[in-house]
Amino acid sequence: MHALPLILLTAAAVTGTASQAAQAAKARTMQQVLETTTAADWRQPDPASTLYLDLASGRVIIELAPGYAPLHASNIKTLVRGHYFDGLAILRVQDNFVTQWGDPDAGDAAKARSLAAASKTLAPEFERAIDARLAFTRLPDGDVYAPEVGFSDGFPVARDPKAGKTWLAHCYGMVGAGRDNGVETGNGSELYVVIGQAPRHLDRNIALVGRVVQGMELLSALPRGSDAMGFYDKPEQRLPIKSVRLEADVPAAERTPIELLRTDTPAFTALIESRRNRSDEWYKLPAGKISLCNVPLPVRSK
Amino acid sequence: MHALPLILLTAAAVTGTASQAAQAAKARTMQQVLETTTAADWRQPDPASTLYLDLASGRVIIELAPGYAPLHASNIKTLVRGHYFDGLAILRVQDNFVTQWGDPDAGDAAKARSLAAASKTLAPEFERAIDARLAFTRLPDGDVYAPEVGFSDGFPVARDPKAGKTWLAHCYGMVGAGRDNGVETGNGSELYVVIGQAPRHLDRNIALVGRVVQGMELLSALPRGSDAMGFYDKPEQRLPIKSVRLEADVPAAERTPIELLRTDTPAFTALIESRRNRSDEWYKLPAGKISLCNVPLPVRSK
Repeated sequence: MHALPLILLTAAAVTGTASQAAQAAKARTMQQVLETTTAADWRQPDPASTLYLDLASGRVIIELAPGYAPLHASNIKTLVRGHYFDGLAILRVQDNFVTQWGDPDAGDAAKARSLAAASKTLAPEFERAIDARLAFTRLPDGDVYAPEVGFSDGFPVARDPKAGKTWLAHCYGMVGAGRDNGVETGNGSELYVVIGQAPRHLDRNIALVGRVVQGMELLSALPRGSDAMGFYDKPEQRLPIKSVRLEADVPAAERTPIELLRTDTPAFTALIESRRNRSDEWYKLPAGKISLCNVPLPVRSK
Repeated sequence: MHALPLILLTAAAVTGTASQAAQAAKARTMQQVLETTTAADWRQPDPASTLYLDLASGRVIIELAPGYAPLHASNIKTLVRGHYFDGLAILRVQDNFVTQWGDPDAGDAAKARSLAAASKTLAPEFERAIDARLAFTRLPDGDVYAPEVGFSDGFPVARDPKAGKTWLAHCYGMVGAGRDNGVETGNGSELYVVIGQAPRHLDRNIALVGRVVQGMELLSALPRGSDAMGFYDKPEQRLPIKSVRLEADVPAAERTPIELLRTDTPAFTALIESRRNRSDEWYKLPAGKISLCNVPLPVRSK
């Protein structure tokens, strides 16, 4: 249909050098990798840790990461079950950075919505101890910010083995809990999602709590706010939130069943390889490398 | 005005360790760096290499990079001076990837707009020889994809000193010339801009031709297309282009005068340092590192 599509998903590779050609010949395309997956390569997100953020434009699905931010995940569930977010709004969209939502009146004690049974402060879950029981599929090409990077239970993570610490990484689509200057001031009542180049300098400075697994375009394509830091300057620019619910609390008929590719399998390792060395005909010089936030995390309807 | 802004631009650093605190104490904030710049730290883009892409929503300003893609820059100027883009449209917006514009009928020889005096094919300007006359401000923290990265004449670039090659890097806001499978099929009549995580695997596979220096949000916040690769499936979803003009051809009264921070000065090196070690009070653990596509390239109205 079109003369100059930027990417064509077609056949074998024409590469820059003989060694690269040999490398690429071994690599399958991501599509080929996905076509050979079996049911065991996929998992359903836990309905008790999956949020439905419903907007007039559609549904955003967020998988929480209780393995990395258990207190935040628990507090967010308490907020959600108390209908805290229903009728609140998207308040901030800063280009190449974040979209953020919560209570527009949070700064005004007289008007702010009550957190009810949820905590106002939480211990700062910015990193956690490395535990041998945590799955870790390490990427082979290094990272600018951390000694090691890879994937753990479907999330992009970084590690510092010397310090014995690991943490979720600020990649596109990751969701975090906004905080004020105090490290305990984040409680999950104001959330942001990364919509631009990975702001990895935020890693270990703020609690990431999960990841958007479907509906990202409903948060990334919003008009940018013109106030400082991308806050909307007029209340009518804010996008209302219809509701945020736990999947577990939603009747079966209203659920959106999805499956996520596991990140601790040979299929996922093959997927990484397919993206390190693109073998589509369009590519002339496969990179032979991949950066953490460039690895796609496939999702399919169930 | 707000309880939990994600970023507060305030005073001194409270850091994680003594060595990090010492490092951060030396670092100024980006705002402090910008406040101490002088006129000599700024430059005006060359009007003969600056494009105004005018949409109903406003003006996008693109600085071409003739130092890296001279044939493409020249062909794009020929197209622009022949009013090639006027009345064409934005055809494709793929989430976390690119926004692309050109002729919707490019694939239909009977209906496609003529390129007139412009070339239909161009030699592939995917990289160029390193030349000692090219300015290069190298970043200290490495890169996943290339041996060296930094900035040259206001553009993010990568280098392979052993191969003697350098190339523009696919960071947020970079503009490239779409091509088909043949390496000479890109001619600048269909252009894309990066709107998500840097797709660095495209480096050296396609000609980058410049960078959006103002108005990025007019291209990044558009509705995503629902066809394959983000093409709009209905013609009415395409966003019309009013005109693309060279700044040099625009009457003075209609110009948008801007200045860009030079990237070969001590001020720019200080800016990089201010972003490697954030000294705002909000940050508890300055990264001490920065990745190529996370360095901001300041622009101001003149």
